[in-house]
Amino acid sequence: MTRIGIIGSHGRMGQAIAAAIADAGEDLAGGVDKGGDVSAITGDADILIDFSSPGALEGNLDAAIAAGLPIVIGTTGLEERHHWLIDSAAQSIPVLQTGNTSLGVTLLAHLVREAASRLGEDWDIEIVETHHRMKVDAPSGTAILLGEAAAQGREVTLADTAVRGRDGITGKREAGTIGFAALRGGTVAGDHTVHFLADNERLSLSHLAENRGIFAKGAVRAAQWLIGKAPGRYTMPEVLGL
Amino acid sequence: MTRIGIIGSHGRMGQAIAAAIADAGEDLAGGVDKGGDVSAITGDADILIDFSSPGALEGNLDAAIAAGLPIVIGTTGLEERHHWLIDSAAQSIPVLQTGNTSLGVTLLAHLVREAASRLGEDWDIEIVETHHRMKVDAPSGTAILLGEAAAQGREVTLADTAVRGRDGITGKREAGTIGFAALRGGTVAGDHTVHFLADNERLSLSHLAENRGIFAKGAVRAAQWLIGKAPGRYTMPEVLGL
Amino acid sequence: MTRIGIIGSHGRMGQAIAAAIADAGEDLAGGVDKGGDVSAITGDADILIDFSSPGALEGNLDAAIAAGLPIVIGTTGLEERHHWLIDSAAQSIPVLQTGNTSLGVTLLAHLVREAASRLGEDWDIEIVETHHRMKVDAPSGTAILLGEAAAQGREVTLADTAVRGRDGITGKREAGTIGFAALRGGTVAGDHTVHFLADNERLSLSHLAENRGIFAKGAVRAAQWLIGKAPGRYTMPEVLGL
Amino acid sequence: MTRIGIIGSHGRMGQAIAAAIADAGEDLAGGVDKGGDVSAITGDADILIDFSSPGALEGNLDAAIAAGLPIVIGTTGLEERHHWLIDSAAQSIPVLQTGNTSLGVTLLAHLVREAASRLGEDWDIEIVETHHRMKVDAPSGTAILLGEAAAQGREVTLADTAVRGRDGITGKREAGTIGFAALRGGTVAGDHTVHFLADNERLSLSHLAENRGIFAKGAVRAAQWLIGKAPGRYTMPEVLGL
Repeated sequence: MTRIGIIGSHGRMGQAIAAAIADAGEDLAGGVDKGGDVSAITGDADILIDFSSPGALEGNLDAAIAAGLPIVIGTTGLEERHHWLIDSAAQSIPVLQTGNTSLGVTLLAHLVREAASRLGEDWDIEIVETHHRMKVDAPSGTAILLGEAAAQGREVTLADTAVRGRDGITGKREAGTIGFAALRGGTVAGDHTVHFLADNERLSLSHLAENRGIFAKGAVRAAQWLIGKAPGRYTMPEVLGL
Repeated sequence: MTRIGIIGSHGRMGQAIAAAIADAGEDLAGGVDKGGDVSAITGDADILIDFSSPGALEGNLDAAIAAGLPIVIGTTGLEERHHWLIDSAAQSIPVLQTGNTSLGVTLLAHLVREAASRLGEDWDIEIVETHHRMKVDAPSGTAILLGEAAAQGREVTLADTAVRGRDGITGKREAGTIGFAALRGGTVAGDHTVHFLADNERLSLSHLAENRGIFAKGAVRAAQWLIGKAPGRYTMPEVLGL
Repeated sequence: MTRIGIIGSHGRMGQAIAAAIADAGEDLAGGVDKGGDVSAITGDADILIDFSSPGALEGNLDAAIAAGLPIVIGTTGLEERHHWLIDSAAQSIPVLQTGNTSLGVTLLAHLVREAASRLGEDWDIEIVETHHRMKVDAPSGTAILLGEAAAQGREVTLADTAVRGRDGITGKREAGTIGFAALRGGTVAGDHTVHFLADNERLSLSHLAENRGIFAKGAVRAAQWLIGKAPGRYTMPEVLGL
Repeated sequence: MTRIGIIGSHGRMGQAIAAAIADAGEDLAGGVDKGGDVSAITGDADILIDFSSPGALEGNLDAAIAAGLPIVIGTTGLEERHHWLIDSAAQSIPVLQTGNTSLGVTLLAHLVREAASRLGEDWDIEIVETHHRMKVDAPSGTAILLGEAAAQGREVTLADTAVRGRDGITGKREAGTIGFAALRGGTVAGDHTVHFLADNERLSLSHLAENRGIFAKGAVRAAQWLIGKAPGRYTMPEVLGL
């Protein structure tokens, strides 16, 4: 039985993960939240799952390294410097960071990469997502993950091609760009669609999460998989054998 | 046979309107485009249809007033001062201005107003639209028309409640706002969806135009209806008897 | 505090209703299931909610009449003879029967009726729904409710116009018909879309339920409203003041 | 310049193909329709494109073989015996038969096969399509093509797993089946969606054709590719290098 500690335990995802740990027959080693001390739970844990905030990431990684524990990171809103911190931590401990822990989204990203690599620049790529009214950032981590898959398929970088928050006099769409749009409302757990739009035809690849239980379940599955791995940075497709 | 003059005759809509005039058995009185002189076509026309640009609106209205001709305005991207110009012109001639000339969208706006008036503020309203890659403004005139219908249903003003181009750290969604998102790509003639998002359920009202012929057909129908009316400002629901 | 008895208490909806009764601060008077005796719970109840099966309906109505209790009926798959039984029971007790107890679907039906009354027969009507893999009947009770709303809007009867389970060499679509299609899979709580399809444009009105909690909540709300009414047959739009 | 003969030249697709031949700078060698003699056009043609009817297939193949001409077959509603005729003809001449000639649908089928091979039987597969009111068969040839792609991905045969025209008391969904549903109305050129529905999440892969020009364009592209090939049976993915 794996003992799992939750960072960000009072949030919606933290509570869903606690339920998923029980469902999976694993052991909840404890949880901390904003202002708490992560090292208070590392002693009883075999692994950590972090769904807190970007600002807490550095401290969380330090605590994981100090305790020699693997860590699954599902926090969204990460920037380049956060990825450097993760790469650095991955030299000492196993780290799995992902914008989305569900099987469906992980496969969707795979299909988006494939489609983007097969279709030329005359197929415009647009990504639209919908989330509940409490979400504070846009676009979602999952939308960015899908945008990166599309960019990889096209052999470009997302930073060079992303167009976000289109509004006003924008001019004609620039070929090769990847557009993002975000809708917010209700209790939507997460809808994502990647559109490929060409002359007179459209291909659309979508995922809909009925509730956030699938993400919690996937995070626990990732934790079970990460235990015992060598230090390094891992991804969801590896967990799912894609 | 009504003689119809087109302002913005070289654009995509201008060409579609010329075809629709022929389909409807009416007479194309001539067309002008950027840099052209509208008064050159007023002599042969019974009515004008304007799908040009906001910057040309004042001159177009002046030419219509000078010739005593009614005018249908489908130009998008209008601002408050353009609406003042239209109101002023409507004291001398019949003017019909609309963000969308199709029967389907006109009925959609009616349904959106109805739904918004019945559902409380716990139903978040989000409007998303997709148009072809050549479109230069966002959100579309039709999206704004639908947003105004929603705002009327709620008895608020759109200017006070619209949230456009959501991106970055936005914070939680504010109750009572109306969100807009725009996708661009391919040759999409125009998709619009108004979402009402509540706790655990969603209502979505959509229109899809397969091609811009429906807008041209509707513009000609509006022109046929407007001929012979008293000076004043008219709307598409009146044309369609809604 | 209203004491509510559940018929069909072990089913998915029965369990959801028990939870919704607690959420609403009302009292669960007891439940019976297949093979059980409804009269065992009527003594402690002020009202009954029935989500069992068409075959059990007659007995359930008899028990409600014998005890003089109002009853909310959400059972699907009802046929004409079941509606006669309900009409007959409604002479003695208040009865509310509905294919769907959610606010969103009730409003959707209202909008569908409105759209169907405004659009001519050149707008083809097609209704498609998706439900979880355990559902045993097709189309759903809600799809039929929406079809009836469309038929009312057009002033025709659904029995004369419905086309179900289209397959094989069907020939061209007959004008004025209302088509139905059913998808089944996963844990989908209920998606419904009514399409109005014309030359070159389409209007689509949709509802998506994220979980069946909204139906349970609506059933309890209907029960609260039905208490104290005179004998007669009532509908969800009355509950919601539409 | 390739000289292309059209079988089924008066139908909607036949007319669209004539236009696409001109757009592609190729030469229209002539056309025949119901009751006409295909051998009348084989003398002037380098290749034939057949969008007629299943009943005409045998005669069309015989004429192609007699003249030694390659043939592209886009006719829908084919049964097993038609495929035997095609296999037999392919021993003498190059034959390309496909349920859909568009790049988008060909790629969609590839993605569906991939997804079906990665996802277990706990992901239910449902295929829904919409076509214009004049279409006489259901499901569409493209829907069947997509169903076959899904079946291949799962290593089953479509004949063993297809469930079509679901209606009435169907019982629970049987694991491993592939469901089909068809909507008809308006002038819809062709919408197709393949849903993968699991516990609490859904993956949906869609294609929308704005008009039938894309199919005509693809048929001409297939013809250009097929010229000069050895006798045998070819497929669209080969044309597109997938």
